[in-house]
Amino acid sequence: MTAILYVCMTCRAGQPLPEGELAPGAQLMAALTVAEVPDGVTLRGVECLSACDHGCTVAVTKPGGWSYVYGRMSPADAPEILRGAGLYAATTDGLVPWRDRPVIFRKQSIARLPPLES
Amino acid sequence: MTAILYVCMTCRAGQPLPEGELAPGAQLMAALTVAEVPDGVTLRGVECLSACDHGCTVAVTKPGGWSYVYGRMSPADAPEILRGAGLYAATTDGLVPWRDRPVIFRKQSIARLPPLES
Repeated sequence: MTAILYVCMTCRAGQPLPEGELAPGAQLMAALTVAEVPDGVTLRGVECLSACDHGCTVAVTKPGGWSYVYGRMSPADAPEILRGAGLYAATTDGLVPWRDRPVIFRKQSIARLPPLES
Repeated sequence: MTAILYVCMTCRAGQPLPEGELAPGAQLMAALTVAEVPDGVTLRGVECLSACDHGCTVAVTKPGGWSYVYGRMSPADAPEILRGAGLYAATTDGLVPWRDRPVIFRKQSIARLPPLES
């Protein structure tokens, strides 16, 4: 089942943004875009996930699954973000076994939400 | 359109829980339960929204709408939480005008998520 990996592209990670530089969120998106996105994962940029105090921020969501928001991500985390998103996409309910989750997902969770009921 | 107001009932708000006392999250749920829930809002307790560093935590979600997670909530906030959830329920996309949002929602946002695509 397809999962969406949202990336907050406007994130400044709490820092002033020098003129002409890409926002840290856009840099993270760039690092993810040039990497290999796992099967079942759709990468999508979004403006502001309202987690500005804990940026850069990504989120994974899928129909019928718990959604997760993760913070303090950097471009160097791109491979682990994508690995975690791939594991997430392979579940039906969004619950990846704890031991399998990337360390950055275990330690940098901002919040999760139950599956949306229709 | 019906919105769900999730309340993390297991939240300890970062404090040790004396034996025999209700968890702060359960206390918040109790305060919400005895108040008047606005039309279009369904109140639902949930175990752990994984926002333990910023508890107590609530979230609002609805089909076709942005979802929001809010932190550092206390039982005294119950009336404003419910007012905000009612305003949220009355929208189609989950976007309540900024000036109308309760101050606790403006200042204590943990994260938001785009509407789930089906």
